[in-house]
Amino acid sequence: MDTPRPQIRHEVQLRHRDVDQLGHVNQAVYHELLEEVRAAFVRESLPDLPFTGYVLARSELDYRSEVRIEDGYVVGEAYVGRIGRSSITVENRLCKPDGTVAVEGRAILVAWDEENRRSRVLTEDERRRLSPGS
Amino acid sequence: MDTPRPQIRHEVQLRHRDVDQLGHVNQAVYHELLEEVRAAFVRESLPDLPFTGYVLARSELDYRSEVRIEDGYVVGEAYVGRIGRSSITVENRLCKPDGTVAVEGRAILVAWDEENRRSRVLTEDERRRLSPGS
Amino acid sequence: MDTPRPQIRHEVQLRHRDVDQLGHVNQAVYHELLEEVRAAFVRESLPDLPFTGYVLARSELDYRSEVRIEDGYVVGEAYVGRIGRSSITVENRLCKPDGTVAVEGRAILVAWDEENRRSRVLTEDERRRLSPGS
Amino acid sequence: MDTPRPQIRHEVQLRHRDVDQLGHVNQAVYHELLEEVRAAFVRESLPDLPFTGYVLARSELDYRSEVRIEDGYVVGEAYVGRIGRSSITVENRLCKPDGTVAVEGRAILVAWDEENRRSRVLTEDERRRLSPGS
Repeated sequence: MDTPRPQIRHEVQLRHRDVDQLGHVNQAVYHELLEEVRAAFVRESLPDLPFTGYVLARSELDYRSEVRIEDGYVVGEAYVGRIGRSSITVENRLCKPDGTVAVEGRAILVAWDEENRRSRVLTEDERRRLSPGS
Repeated sequence: MDTPRPQIRHEVQLRHRDVDQLGHVNQAVYHELLEEVRAAFVRESLPDLPFTGYVLARSELDYRSEVRIEDGYVVGEAYVGRIGRSSITVENRLCKPDGTVAVEGRAILVAWDEENRRSRVLTEDERRRLSPGS
Repeated sequence: MDTPRPQIRHEVQLRHRDVDQLGHVNQAVYHELLEEVRAAFVRESLPDLPFTGYVLARSELDYRSEVRIEDGYVVGEAYVGRIGRSSITVENRLCKPDGTVAVEGRAILVAWDEENRRSRVLTEDERRRLSPGS
Repeated sequence: MDTPRPQIRHEVQLRHRDVDQLGHVNQAVYHELLEEVRAAFVRESLPDLPFTGYVLARSELDYRSEVRIEDGYVVGEAYVGRIGRSSITVENRLCKPDGTVAVEGRAILVAWDEENRRSRVLTEDERRRLSPGS
């Protein structure tokens, strides 16, 4: 049986401004919404981490189903998929209120040393808090 | 005869993201575009002013004519309408490539002392550079 | 004693994307947030009105106090200030969770006849629903 | 020797609004900027295609180097990497004025039948115009 891993479920309100000429949430906006989900995830899993503790190195996103303003909000989900030496892969997606997946993908976050402006090795504390069973 | 006053003409490219469900540039976006015009104006009129030299205290905007993505860009115009003790009023507008006024209004900018985080009196140099005939 | 008039109180979540280089919510974003408040107001006061029933003709906004991402959300308030022949003035503002006013101002909305693409006279039903005591 | 394939080089102006609290262009904004580059590419390669001819099905993006407002603009490049039965892969990136790569990745666009709201097979004309040597 799988040990449960740290994850989050976070609702994000939609705004009229999110919708483009085609009448659905614009493709770039999903990245803005996922940023909220990941921020909530990091805030909860690593409450002591400074704001600049990670930088985004890569994103992959599959667009599954369009979202409309009438949907009102989306439900974001995120969990750590893989822990590297100085990076983590966050699996994340946004669902509509009825449960349909709108977009799903992953983000690779690199642990960041703001002072020296370069990547850093994950601390043991981070590694433990982000691992299954924590 | 009027002494010419410092003014600017600055083109801003439109983006598909600027357009909302109604097929025209969204009302909030004009404030984003006018920010570019005012930034260009301040950069040109007061090249030595630090980035945080002014803060926006009030905006008024009349929406005259809708802009569509096919317009490609808008032409921003700005000039100083009134110089107060610690604030300036910038008259600004955006026109379509064919010259039609899209939006027009004004912004009141307060001279800002970033260190003490409060308004400051305009310097003589600022006052001179922003006045007609300069 | 004043007859109570239709009004709304509507919370809007903040996003990291709302914040600019100065570390506070960007000036243009308030117009995006107020659009949500006015949409909620119209949806509640005039539930049968089509989406394109009004267009924004003018906005005035005073910037009172900066908002930061740590504030989490803002509380929007809106009510009808004046009812004209073919337009209404909506008084609207955004407050921080602690009650401090962030921005306040008004929007003039023109009743719109989408088919003929021009302003229209307010209906008696609209006028009644938007008036004090309704 | 490789036959040259259709490609584009398209400049996009930056805006102060593109920059976030960390002082660099926000991660979601790159997707907004790349949308402009792909739109320019499709407009040039397939001038007769209706606006809704393709929908975005997937994006992959590597964040290489941060962009600041002082950079002024980015240079977008795009070309077709692979042509499928009903989709094309567009390789795209954004560079800073000095040539440094800011972001690079790809977008999978699915040919779209707006009337029946489902994917469609690429026409022979599309296929020819998007192929090397055209």
